[in-house]
Amino acid sequence: MAALARSVLVTGSSRGIGLELVRQLAASPRPPQHIFATCRDPEGPRGKALQELATQHSSIKLVQLDTVNLPSIQRAMQAVGYHLKDQGLNLLINNAGISSHATLCSLDSQEMLNVFATNVVGPLQEFLPLLEQAAKAGKEGLSCSRAAVINISSKLGSIGLCLHVPEAPMYPYRASKAAQNMVTRCLAAELQDKAILCMAIHPGWVKTDMGKEEAPLTVEQSVRGILTVLASVSQDTSGAFLDWEGNSLPW
Amino acid sequence: MAALARSVLVTGSSRGIGLELVRQLAASPRPPQHIFATCRDPEGPRGKALQELATQHSSIKLVQLDTVNLPSIQRAMQAVGYHLKDQGLNLLINNAGISSHATLCSLDSQEMLNVFATNVVGPLQEFLPLLEQAAKAGKEGLSCSRAAVINISSKLGSIGLCLHVPEAPMYPYRASKAAQNMVTRCLAAELQDKAILCMAIHPGWVKTDMGKEEAPLTVEQSVRGILTVLASVSQDTSGAFLDWEGNSLPW
Ligand SMILES: NC(=O)c1ccc[n+]([C@@H]2O[C@H](COP(=O)([O-])OP(=O)(O)OC[C@H]3O[C@@H](n4cnc5c(N)ncnc54)[C@H](OP(=O)(O)O)[C@@H]3O)[C@@H](O)[C@H]2O)c1
Ligand SMILES: NC(=O)c1ccc[n+]([C@@H]2O[C@H](COP(=O)([O-])OP(=O)(O)OC[C@H]3O[C@@H](n4cnc5c(N)ncnc54)[C@H](OP(=O)(O)O)[C@@H]3O)[C@@H](O)[C@H]2O)c1
Repeated sequence: MAALARSVLVTGSSRGIGLELVRQLAASPRPPQHIFATCRDPEGPRGKALQELATQHSSIKLVQLDTVNLPSIQRAMQAVGYHLKDQGLNLLINNAGISSHATLCSLDSQEMLNVFATNVVGPLQEFLPLLEQAAKAGKEGLSCSRAAVINISSKLGSIGLCLHVPEAPMYPYRASKAAQNMVTRCLAAELQDKAILCMAIHPGWVKTDMGKEEAPLTVEQSVRGILTVLASVSQDTSGAFLDWEGNSLPW
Repeated sequence: MAALARSVLVTGSSRGIGLELVRQLAASPRPPQHIFATCRDPEGPRGKALQELATQHSSIKLVQLDTVNLPSIQRAMQAVGYHLKDQGLNLLINNAGISSHATLCSLDSQEMLNVFATNVVGPLQEFLPLLEQAAKAGKEGLSCSRAAVINISSKLGSIGLCLHVPEAPMYPYRASKAAQNMVTRCLAAELQDKAILCMAIHPGWVKTDMGKEEAPLTVEQSVRGILTVLASVSQDTSGAFLDWEGNSLPW
């Protein structure tokens, strides 16, 4: 099996799904040459699990990146560009995210905006030059090994499904993921001609700090599924909203 | 024909579609008893057209309401409650909105958040008690004459259609309207049991400051269509995304 991509960047990789993405990518039979494991605090206590992982795999580089802080995103982009020389970045996985359990009555607009800032705005455009560089260097077609932006979305962001609202209102989280899906779809349409694939993926309901212990999936299962899906996506799936098993979800 | 509703509140009614909604509601054969025409600056020059309209129709009450300013929303809610005594508010039309032509490259997160704050967060929950009051007093079923929240959305907020992206990227506007659609759908699910109808409506592409002169529809045509649709919506359309002609749009 070919490597998924020569270079990968994962946001929010200090724990949960992001950390497991880095772990499985690094441990794969043909690992990416560069795995940029980004998080808010790579040198502090919250970066501990990543630091340990990096001692075992030379492919892993820890990079500071806070998705709500533009200077931090720009510094990360420069550091990554420096490592990659002229080869560009193949795969950007926007995984960092926060949840919010606000109901209609407890909703406060500042919280809603914080969730939007983290989950939607993120490192949208800063990494584009590095992705374009990789896309230009690549061969025919669209794929994660050439150039791709994968946004970790959620089934709760499906307006069409509109799952369990009265029991789990979570307005800010749902609205942010619907907005993120819109951005994914627009990006896919806009970047198609530049040979950059864009897709939204629902990781399943996963045992993490966010998904909680009652979730049915382990991070291992979810991430194995996600990486299998990513290996198979192409031109036809650009702009799609798939789950960790490759099933299509309604917007 | 029965009155659409005994009481109606329209946000952003200083110009464009909001102003025309107030005009046509007031001029209808059986006008609402109370039309709360809200805008940011009812006493200043931007409120001039509304002030003139109010001199012709005693049903129109001008109320200050800035959708990004919580104290202003709360004051408006109190003023409206005072006028309505114990009868509650039947129909809330969230029309106030701003656009943004930012492309992927010109995108700035502050602009994105401003658009979200105006188009999504708005007077979401403050008016709920007044709507509940009206719903309780009403008869069977869901309708605009009993209790309803109508969110003025946009076809550009349809993720499924994803219209003309490279020519009209407008990321913040599109993302905000997709998020607003999610909120509409969640509200519909959550408020169904309280007999409050919630719906998203696309007004068409309309000649206003936002829609510009090249738009095919006049405000008269768009608003005539919207009011006809609103008169016919019921339980079955709660949670729907319709256009000004009553056609259903994909999320
Ligand atoms: N778990 C589920 O069931 C589930 C289901 C659907 C979708 N998702 C999505 O999957 C993604 C990962 O979720 P998870 O379950 O792994 O969540 P998690 O365990 O709560 O981890 C969230 C990660 O995001 C990071 N993060 C938060 N805000 C950030 C910011 N401003 N800048 C950089 N990093 C930031 C956190 O870093 P710190 O350690 O610094 O806080 C952490 O690494 C999210 O986008 C989530 O919405 C999860
Ligand atoms: N025109 C179209 O083709 C079109 C198409 C699809 C959807 N829409 C939607 O239809 C709605 C009305 O659009 P329009 O074409 O009538 O736009 P418009 O002519 O630009 O008028 C916008 C209105 O919203 C008000 N507004 C903006 N920010 C506000 C705030 N923070 N608080 C209170 N009021 C605020 C403005 O008040 P000021 O006078 O104080 O600025 C103005 O009255 C919007 O939600 C828009 O997204 C329009």
